[in-house]
Amino acid sequence: MDRGLLDDLKGLLQERISFSESVRNNHAKGEDAYDPILPKAVLFPKDNEELSKILKICNQFKVPVTAYGTGTSLEGHVVGNDEGFTISMENFNKIISINEEDFDCRVQANVSREQLNETLKDKGVFFPIDPGANASLGGMTACSASGTMAVRYGTMRTTVLGLTVVLANGDIIKTGSRAKKTSAGYNLTNLFVGSEGTLGIITEVHLRLSPIPESIMSAVCQFPDLDSAVLTAQEIIQYGVPIARVELLNKDQMDISIKYSKLENLESLPTLFYEFHGSELSNKESIDVVEEISKNNNGSEFKWAANTEERNKIWKARHNVYYSVKAEGDNIRVYVTDVCVPISNIVECIRFAETELQDTGLKAPMVGHVGDGNFHVSVVYDPSKENQYKYIRAFSNRLIDKALEMDGTITGEHGIGLQKKEYLLKQHPDNIPLMKMIKKSFDPNNILNPGKVFDI
Amino acid sequence: MDRGLLDDLKGLLQERISFSESVRNNHAKGEDAYDPILPKAVLFPKDNEELSKILKICNQFKVPVTAYGTGTSLEGHVVGNDEGFTISMENFNKIISINEEDFDCRVQANVSREQLNETLKDKGVFFPIDPGANASLGGMTACSASGTMAVRYGTMRTTVLGLTVVLANGDIIKTGSRAKKTSAGYNLTNLFVGSEGTLGIITEVHLRLSPIPESIMSAVCQFPDLDSAVLTAQEIIQYGVPIARVELLNKDQMDISIKYSKLENLESLPTLFYEFHGSELSNKESIDVVEEISKNNNGSEFKWAANTEERNKIWKARHNVYYSVKAEGDNIRVYVTDVCVPISNIVECIRFAETELQDTGLKAPMVGHVGDGNFHVSVVYDPSKENQYKYIRAFSNRLIDKALEMDGTITGEHGIGLQKKEYLLKQHPDNIPLMKMIKKSFDPNNILNPGKVFDI
Repeated sequence: MDRGLLDDLKGLLQERISFSESVRNNHAKGEDAYDPILPKAVLFPKDNEELSKILKICNQFKVPVTAYGTGTSLEGHVVGNDEGFTISMENFNKIISINEEDFDCRVQANVSREQLNETLKDKGVFFPIDPGANASLGGMTACSASGTMAVRYGTMRTTVLGLTVVLANGDIIKTGSRAKKTSAGYNLTNLFVGSEGTLGIITEVHLRLSPIPESIMSAVCQFPDLDSAVLTAQEIIQYGVPIARVELLNKDQMDISIKYSKLENLESLPTLFYEFHGSELSNKESIDVVEEISKNNNGSEFKWAANTEERNKIWKARHNVYYSVKAEGDNIRVYVTDVCVPISNIVECIRFAETELQDTGLKAPMVGHVGDGNFHVSVVYDPSKENQYKYIRAFSNRLIDKALEMDGTITGEHGIGLQKKEYLLKQHPDNIPLMKMIKKSFDPNNILNPGKVFDI
Repeated sequence: MDRGLLDDLKGLLQERISFSESVRNNHAKGEDAYDPILPKAVLFPKDNEELSKILKICNQFKVPVTAYGTGTSLEGHVVGNDEGFTISMENFNKIISINEEDFDCRVQANVSREQLNETLKDKGVFFPIDPGANASLGGMTACSASGTMAVRYGTMRTTVLGLTVVLANGDIIKTGSRAKKTSAGYNLTNLFVGSEGTLGIITEVHLRLSPIPESIMSAVCQFPDLDSAVLTAQEIIQYGVPIARVELLNKDQMDISIKYSKLENLESLPTLFYEFHGSELSNKESIDVVEEISKNNNGSEFKWAANTEERNKIWKARHNVYYSVKAEGDNIRVYVTDVCVPISNIVECIRFAETELQDTGLKAPMVGHVGDGNFHVSVVYDPSKENQYKYIRAFSNRLIDKALEMDGTITGEHGIGLQKKEYLLKQHPDNIPLMKMIKKSFDPNNILNPGKVFDI
């Protein structure tokens, strides 16, 4: 590594650069199934201006940089580059402004979704996008994340109003505005949303918030078989019920979650977690419809969360499904899929996934934002057994083909990273040349998270 | 114009190319205040493949092309180029598929919003984005349009799921999918939404639909002064009422609309048009809140639309405001503004606009999607009096400055076209280099609607 480069960076960052193996190791991968790759060093810029200088230097020396937030990505987005640096965003941890009367706020990139909601809680507003992990809002923006409430409140694509981004050449730009809508030129905001750190490093995010509903009611309903549970979710959506959450856990997942999250009063059966947001009256109307549909599909009586604590327990269990699966063994890894199909195809697609895995002896816990047609299978495997990974990847290939055949997408919310590059070529072969043109013009030296999304 | 170019096009298009002056004149501008500029010819491709061949030929000869839908744009987007061709999209008029069970459909670009809703009406779903004009869905996509229901249902940015686009080099690409959400690579769909025909020609649009609500109720409320009306709208939004429409018409606009649309039972006063979508019960809850807020701000008793016909009359009057203003004289033109600010600034911003125009003697009809913080002033002027235009442009400059000062945007829904290029430089000076990079890589010969959005 060039001496001049290191001298420049050390001069700039002082103690905010670390060559320690443990620090590099802590920034060598996300929560994905990849082997860690240690960067040459981890940099900790303190603000936009310092990050701008770092990128100018790295661009000059053509050295790769990977931005790192909470490290909760699942597709290999933040796996390090042994020829370059990882940039920790941990100093970008401030909430810049909250305008509850306008339902918007601006945060630095490393503010986590829970941190934001904790700060908002007395202001009558909340931020509804909730992936399982307590991810950073910058990372959620970069991966175009969503979560359990997307069915009602949208995704990062629809809730990000504007961004501050530091570009490969060090330029600092601000996209969007605080206005609720805009047609002012090309939509750069939505180009950076989902660009996975390859077009610029997001340092600030302007977000739309939602009013905290007058009444929130959560219930659990269990079903004799998977098809009945999924069909119920499908019918709820097709009926047009404005449900806030409708989450599926299959039998294997319930098995694991009952143990991990101590859901003593539930059985190992396919299960839907519901949540209703509205006034008491409008919730009652929605609940009546959902109860009827559930019953028609042989669903159990609803188990209601009696208070906020019980409600939080249900949703914490749901958010922790990935960690519950990881806790199944010490030396295991978890391969997580993420496909999304039109709602009328969701029953067939989930059935396909379960049938494909049934005879393998592998546990196949599944969870789904089924109201969006989106679901995940978390397949547990032993990394020392190469055949297991190969088998799982072959299953994943078949599931991807099935989703595409059904007019769906290869990823509803996890992004491409390293793991889905070949699938992106399948879904959007005709889009890739344009994506590459954009990448080349924004980052001509290919320093920003190279090798992620696609290969140049 | 090169002989070879014309021979190639005539050979390809046969009778689907017109050099007639009247046809060229009919495709020389939109509903904007510009002088018409006649293209060399108007081309009428019959399908994607023919359009692809046209663009290949024009790209080879470096000749400009402007796509033309219903010609209802307001900012000069479709003003012709006297060195090039206008491409009429009129043959792209088919609804390709409707999947009511998935709330989506695919249409060719020149299908109009009313044509789509007419076809959908027995299927329990509708398409909610409604600019005043009966615009084409391709044009609405290209301009990132919205309308009276954006406050509840979003804009083209949030409802377009995918596109077919013919690129400058003739490549035909398909973006997005039928899935409700996706994180598969860069979001090209939202890059083409709002690109105003400068990055590619949109030929097919995949749209999200909404369920037709069980109950729809419309009411009109009149106020003694403008501030009271706008404040009412602001408070309704800040309260979190899920209102479907909340539209402002100021005194001057009501004056004109009462005559033009025969609203005999209304007075020339600042007015809000409301609409509620939901169940009867949930609408009743919303209405109670809105009535209370309106009353507290000295609003009149609500005048309810008794049936579908009366409801349609109200909304037709609202959609026709631009035509009503145009009908004010024979040789007049109308300069339309379009700014959007955070809701907490809407009272001050609208007051500013009215005060600025008060002493000029010019009529200043105003309408607003005030629930979004978005409003328009339609200033009538005599094009033979140069000073009038200059005066209006100076007013527009001041309003733009005010909106930007208030964290707003220079256009909520009309786009940039020719008229707002200098304002785009004000709002996003740091974004322009990136926009130009994208333009140059997608359209290296600058043949696609050159001179619109920005100058290369």
